[in-house]
Amino acid sequence: MRQVWRNCHAATMAGGKYAAIERAAILTRGKSIEWIGPEDALPRADGAPVHDLRGAWVTPGLIDCHTHLVFGGNRSREFEQRLQGVDYASIAAQGGGIASTVRATRAATEGELYASARRRALHLLRDGVTTLEVKSGYGLDLPNERKMLRVARRLGQTLPLTVQATCLAAHALPPEFAGRADDYIDEVARRILPVLAAEGLVDAVDAFCEHLAFSPGQVDRVFQAARHLGLPVKLHAEQLSSLHGATLAAGYGALSADHLEHATEGDVLAMAGAGTVAVLLPGAFYALRETRLPPLELLRRHGVPIAISSDLNPGTSPALSLRLMLSMACTLFRMTPEEALAGATVHAARALGLQATHGELAAGRVADFVAWDIGHPSELAYWIGGDIPKRVIRHAGEVGAMPLD
Amino acid sequence: MRQVWRNCHAATMAGGKYAAIERAAILTRGKSIEWIGPEDALPRADGAPVHDLRGAWVTPGLIDCHTHLVFGGNRSREFEQRLQGVDYASIAAQGGGIASTVRATRAATEGELYASARRRALHLLRDGVTTLEVKSGYGLDLPNERKMLRVARRLGQTLPLTVQATCLAAHALPPEFAGRADDYIDEVARRILPVLAAEGLVDAVDAFCEHLAFSPGQVDRVFQAARHLGLPVKLHAEQLSSLHGATLAAGYGALSADHLEHATEGDVLAMAGAGTVAVLLPGAFYALRETRLPPLELLRRHGVPIAISSDLNPGTSPALSLRLMLSMACTLFRMTPEEALAGATVHAARALGLQATHGELAAGRVADFVAWDIGHPSELAYWIGGDIPKRVIRHAGEVGAMPLD
Ligand SMILES: [Zn+2]
Ligand SMILES: [Zn+2]
Repeated sequence: MRQVWRNCHAATMAGGKYAAIERAAILTRGKSIEWIGPEDALPRADGAPVHDLRGAWVTPGLIDCHTHLVFGGNRSREFEQRLQGVDYASIAAQGGGIASTVRATRAATEGELYASARRRALHLLRDGVTTLEVKSGYGLDLPNERKMLRVARRLGQTLPLTVQATCLAAHALPPEFAGRADDYIDEVARRILPVLAAEGLVDAVDAFCEHLAFSPGQVDRVFQAARHLGLPVKLHAEQLSSLHGATLAAGYGALSADHLEHATEGDVLAMAGAGTVAVLLPGAFYALRETRLPPLELLRRHGVPIAISSDLNPGTSPALSLRLMLSMACTLFRMTPEEALAGATVHAARALGLQATHGELAAGRVADFVAWDIGHPSELAYWIGGDIPKRVIRHAGEVGAMPLD
Repeated sequence: MRQVWRNCHAATMAGGKYAAIERAAILTRGKSIEWIGPEDALPRADGAPVHDLRGAWVTPGLIDCHTHLVFGGNRSREFEQRLQGVDYASIAAQGGGIASTVRATRAATEGELYASARRRALHLLRDGVTTLEVKSGYGLDLPNERKMLRVARRLGQTLPLTVQATCLAAHALPPEFAGRADDYIDEVARRILPVLAAEGLVDAVDAFCEHLAFSPGQVDRVFQAARHLGLPVKLHAEQLSSLHGATLAAGYGALSADHLEHATEGDVLAMAGAGTVAVLLPGAFYALRETRLPPLELLRRHGVPIAISSDLNPGTSPALSLRLMLSMACTLFRMTPEEALAGATVHAARALGLQATHGELAAGRVADFVAWDIGHPSELAYWIGGDIPKRVIRHAGEVGAMPLD
C-alpha cells in the first residue's frame, strides 16, 4: 500500500548531515520509502491515504546501537549505598556490582526477563527509537546466555522495533571459572558461541577488553570463533585503559569499537581503515563521572563515523532515553546537535551493519521515521529530558501509544 | 469525600528522610490527608471508595521550586551555534543570549506564552510534579512582566498544579535602561512591584545578584520594596562569583537562596540562622559545564535545608524533568537519593513557604502524591531519563493522562 506523509520538514541525515528538506513530503510503499522530496514535487499517488504531519520535523527512527537492556533486578540500592559513603570493597564483599546482576539474571525466568526488558524497550520506543541492539552478557553460561538472547529475539517479534541480538558471553568471568579465564574463553569460543549461533540467536559477537575483564589475546580467540561462524564482531574497548582493543577489532573488520575514552591515534587510524564505527556512550561517562573525553578530534580528522548510544545497563548507565544521550553528547563531549543526531541514526545503523536499509530517509530505505513537534532538529539535543510530542512510524505503520505498565 | 488508597509503601519524607512505611495505606478526606499509616491500622471508612495501588511506592507530589518556564521562543539554534564554534561575542552581536528571550517574550501574546508554557508545565506534571514555581523576568517592563505573571496564574487555574508566581523583574537590565541600572531598579521597586502586587499577581520577589546583573545594593532596594509590600523574597545568589547575596537574602528572612556554587561558610551560617533554604540547580550546573560544586558539606553541617529544582529556562537549563534533576543531584553533586528526593518535596515546599501544607505525607497535609511503579524510592534518582509508570493524585483526585499536544 502506498501512503503519503505531507506537510513536514525532513532531516534526512544523508551523509551524516541534516541534509534538510523544508516543506517536504514522503511517499511510502509497504514498509519502504518510495520517494522523499519537496512537497511540491510529490509524485501522483492516486488513492493513497494522506497523513498531515502538521509542520513536524521528520527524522529517521532513532537507533540505539549498544544496550544491555535484558537483565534481572536493578542496582539502585547499590547506587544509594555508594552515595551514602559505603566503599567499593564492602559492596563487592556483599556480592554487589556486576556479580549481583549475573545472579539476578540467572535466577530470573525467561518470562520475568522479558517483562522487565519489554518495559525498558518501550521507554526507548516512546523516546523515538525504532531499532535497537541488545547484548547478552549477564548469563555467562550456555543456558543463561541463551535465555537472554531469546528475550532479545522475542522483543523484536512482539514490539514494533527492529532488534539486533549480540552475544557478549565474554563480558565478565563467571564465578564458577574464577582464576580460569582462559578456560572460560574456551567455553565461549568452542561451545557457547557455536551453539547459540546455530540456534539463530546471534547477529554479532561482542567482548569486553579491559584489565578487569578479558585481555586482547583472549578477545582474539573469541573473534576467531566469530569469524569461523561468519558473524560480525564489535568490542568494548579503551574505556578505562589503553589496550589497543580497538586496533584488534579493526583487524577483524569490526562493525564498531565502543567507549574509546583511551583510544590512541593508532587505534583511530586502524578503525578508519577498517570502516569501524566509534560508538560513544555519554551515559556511562556521566554516571561514572569520567573526566577523560573520547578523542573526538582524532575521530573527526580521520573520518571515523561516530555513533551515540545509551549503553542502557543496570550498573554504569541506567539510561532510559536515547534523546537524553544527544544532550549529553553535546554538553559533555562537545559534539554538535547534528553530529549527535547522525550518531543516533545513520552512524548507529552502520554500527549494526544496517546501513543499506536503516538510518537515513531516502528512496529504497525502510520507512522508519519520527515526526517531532519541534521547530528545528537541534531541539532534539537542546531540551534536557522530557518527552517531546511525536508520531512514530515504523515500516510505514504508525506506532500507537504503548502503555508502559 | 473520604477515599482509601491502599496496598502501597510510602516514603513520607517527614523530617527530610524517607521515613518509610511499608505496607501502607492513606485515607483522604476531600483535598487532604486524614490519616496515613500501616495498612493493618487503617481506620474504618465505611462507604469510601478504595483504590488499589498495587504495591507502588507513594511519595509526596514533586515540587519544582525554581522555574522560568514562561518564555517566548527557545535558544536551540544558539546552543547549536556555540557547539559549532561560534564565539560568545558573535552570538551577542547578533542579539543572542537572554536579550533574544526578552525580545521573543515581549513579542509574544499572552495566549502564545500560555500555550508554550502549558506544554512545559505538562512535561513536569507528567514527571510527577504537582506544585511548581514560575518566575517572571523576561518582560522587564510593567506590561510584559504582568503578562508573564498572568500566564503563571492561568497555569495554576487551568492545570492540576499548584503554581506559585514570583516576580523576577530584577533579572536583567532591559535594553531601554542600558547604562542606567539604578533607574531600572527604581522602576522595579517603585512601580512594577507595587502595581503587580496590588493586582494579586505576586507570591514572592526574586532578583539576580551577580556582576552581570544587579549588585547587592540594588538587590537591597528591591527587597526593601518587597518587605514594604509584605512579600517574601528569594535570590539568585553566588552562582558565578561570591557577592554574599545569600547573606543579604538571609537578612530579609528569605525563603531561599538559589544556585550557591560560590557561597562561603559565612553565607551558609546566615542562611542557617534565618531558615533560608538552599536551592541547588544541577541542570544549570550540567548545561554550563560548571566545575565548582555548591558547598554541600557546609550546608549539611549547619543544617540548611537543601532543595533541588530544574531551573527550567531557555538559556542555561532547558530541563523538562525534575526527576532527572534527582539523578544529576546525586551524580554531579554527590547527594544521596534520599537527600535528592527530600530536595524535591519537603525542602522544596519550604523554599516556597508551603511547608505547613505541602511536601510531606502526613495527616492534615494536602493530598498530593505520586504512586510510582518502582521497588524502592532510590530508583527515582537511579534511572537516567525515561518516564517511570506512575499515578499522580492531586487534591485527592487522580490526574488523568494529559496529552502534550
Ligand atoms: Zn556496554
Ligand atoms: Zn533561575
